[in-house]
Amino acid sequence: MSLLVVGSVAFDALESPYGKVDRALGGAATYFAVAASFFTHVNLVGIVGDDFTEQDAHVFRGRKIDLEGLERATGKTFFWAGRYSENLNERVTLTTELNVFAEFKPRLPEKYRGAEHVFLANIAPELQRSVLQQVRKRPKLAAMDTMNYWISGSNAELRETLRHVDILMINDSETRELSSEHNLLRAAKHIFKMGPSTLVVKRGEHGAMLVDKSGVFCVPAFPLEEPHDPTGAGDCFAGGFMGYLASAGKHTDAALRRAMVYGSVLGSFAVERFGLDRLRTLKRAEINARARHFLKLTTFKL
Amino acid sequence: MSLLVVGSVAFDALESPYGKVDRALGGAATYFAVAASFFTHVNLVGIVGDDFTEQDAHVFRGRKIDLEGLERATGKTFFWAGRYSENLNERVTLTTELNVFAEFKPRLPEKYRGAEHVFLANIAPELQRSVLQQVRKRPKLAAMDTMNYWISGSNAELRETLRHVDILMINDSETRELSSEHNLLRAAKHIFKMGPSTLVVKRGEHGAMLVDKSGVFCVPAFPLEEPHDPTGAGDCFAGGFMGYLASAGKHTDAALRRAMVYGSVLGSFAVERFGLDRLRTLKRAEINARARHFLKLTTFKL
Repeated sequence: MSLLVVGSVAFDALESPYGKVDRALGGAATYFAVAASFFTHVNLVGIVGDDFTEQDAHVFRGRKIDLEGLERATGKTFFWAGRYSENLNERVTLTTELNVFAEFKPRLPEKYRGAEHVFLANIAPELQRSVLQQVRKRPKLAAMDTMNYWISGSNAELRETLRHVDILMINDSETRELSSEHNLLRAAKHIFKMGPSTLVVKRGEHGAMLVDKSGVFCVPAFPLEEPHDPTGAGDCFAGGFMGYLASAGKHTDAALRRAMVYGSVLGSFAVERFGLDRLRTLKRAEINARARHFLKLTTFKL
Repeated sequence: MSLLVVGSVAFDALESPYGKVDRALGGAATYFAVAASFFTHVNLVGIVGDDFTEQDAHVFRGRKIDLEGLERATGKTFFWAGRYSENLNERVTLTTELNVFAEFKPRLPEKYRGAEHVFLANIAPELQRSVLQQVRKRPKLAAMDTMNYWISGSNAELRETLRHVDILMINDSETRELSSEHNLLRAAKHIFKMGPSTLVVKRGEHGAMLVDKSGVFCVPAFPLEEPHDPTGAGDCFAGGFMGYLASAGKHTDAALRRAMVYGSVLGSFAVERFGLDRLRTLKRAEINARARHFLKLTTFKL
């Protein structure tokens, strides 16, 4: 089943101890769509400027990614520049230029409006909600990301959007800020009252945790000796997670657990190289092999 | 098979948002021995002062813990006072009084010298080594803990002791300081060159990771809504881990994985109440039930 994503498409300038790029295609919707396309057909809603070339679109071509919803506007594409610390565990934003993204009003092509699986990447909560309003029926599964900027600056709007989604997928500091609760289990209970029935907490090098009414499921991060660039890892996690669920067409406990693993698999590949580089060459067989490696990493018998 | 532990027996004064105690029995060897005694017979080597009463020894009685190696000296028992932050994720040491522990020279009773499983809790590395020297044959399995104080202050002594142990069990910041390497996989490779063939990294609320030549195994921390007191959690982890291995009498990959789970189980119980309180009432059936809960927390099928 196809999967709708709305979010940023951007150019990134990245610096880490492993290298430097001045203009790499990035943005949450980009990472998400490429990761999810290994599992299912993806319809992408976003906006780019007239500096976005066919060469830039190349990463989407030859994949199951529909770009009818990618609006081309006059002006420059969203631009972000960041630098990572030596251990990749801290980053500073050097530049954020919203450019055409500042005026972004998501518009769903007619053929996207039957979406059964929807992912609202990190954008203004009122824009996230406008996407859900354009979908004809309540989706089988709607998930969203957000960030501290919206939690503190647009809390009422965010709360309104949260009422309409099934899964909230954020990191641990966002979980704590949104719920005003340090303990993640207690935080989940607060968040369930806001709307979502499932909370996925992304914990970077510590893996990810899913909490829902049936309990808790934890998956570690894949241990890598030389991660190069964490940019997009969370969006690739979301893409693997939602891509798998859309392809499975069911959201049983077993399917959600597998989705957590495929999310972790895609996130782990994303950080192996700069920007989208590793995903460009990634094969489905490698995804399956790494998922089996997660079994080895976590399996025990009593 | 019996298990030898050497380490501190102490009185602790603890403050956390959940309460305050002025004099609770603690110390690494205490927590370790109580946790391990659910699995195997434990021989304890340590020192206490004349303020240590039969009432204090009560937690050891009725368990498979031998106290012939617990020296009674004139003076006061090691005393430590600490206060935890609101979220229990930071602590400040208010007082450390070594007292009789300052002159501690571990002496193994004759009947302890055939030890096949040895755990050297966090004490001066030369004292750890003196215990190994008193054991008649190289143990089947020797494991040790240490801390930043010894890594920075007694590095050469620590390196000498590391040459003689199979398993090093420390937290992530200690792993990074000892190896001068942020990445834990690369850190493990450095540490293997120092002697141990297995590294267990205790990561607090993020669980634990075992690295050896056959790869990596990760176990999450048990999610608790209301942890009360993290004191002794790492020592209880070590006790569950080593206690299980001593009882199993083998160190296969499958046994090491189970040991990681039992370590996590004991650590999780330790933090539920103040000091040793939860362990005092703990039943073996509860340990087994929580181990099965770890299966539910981590199991997935592809």
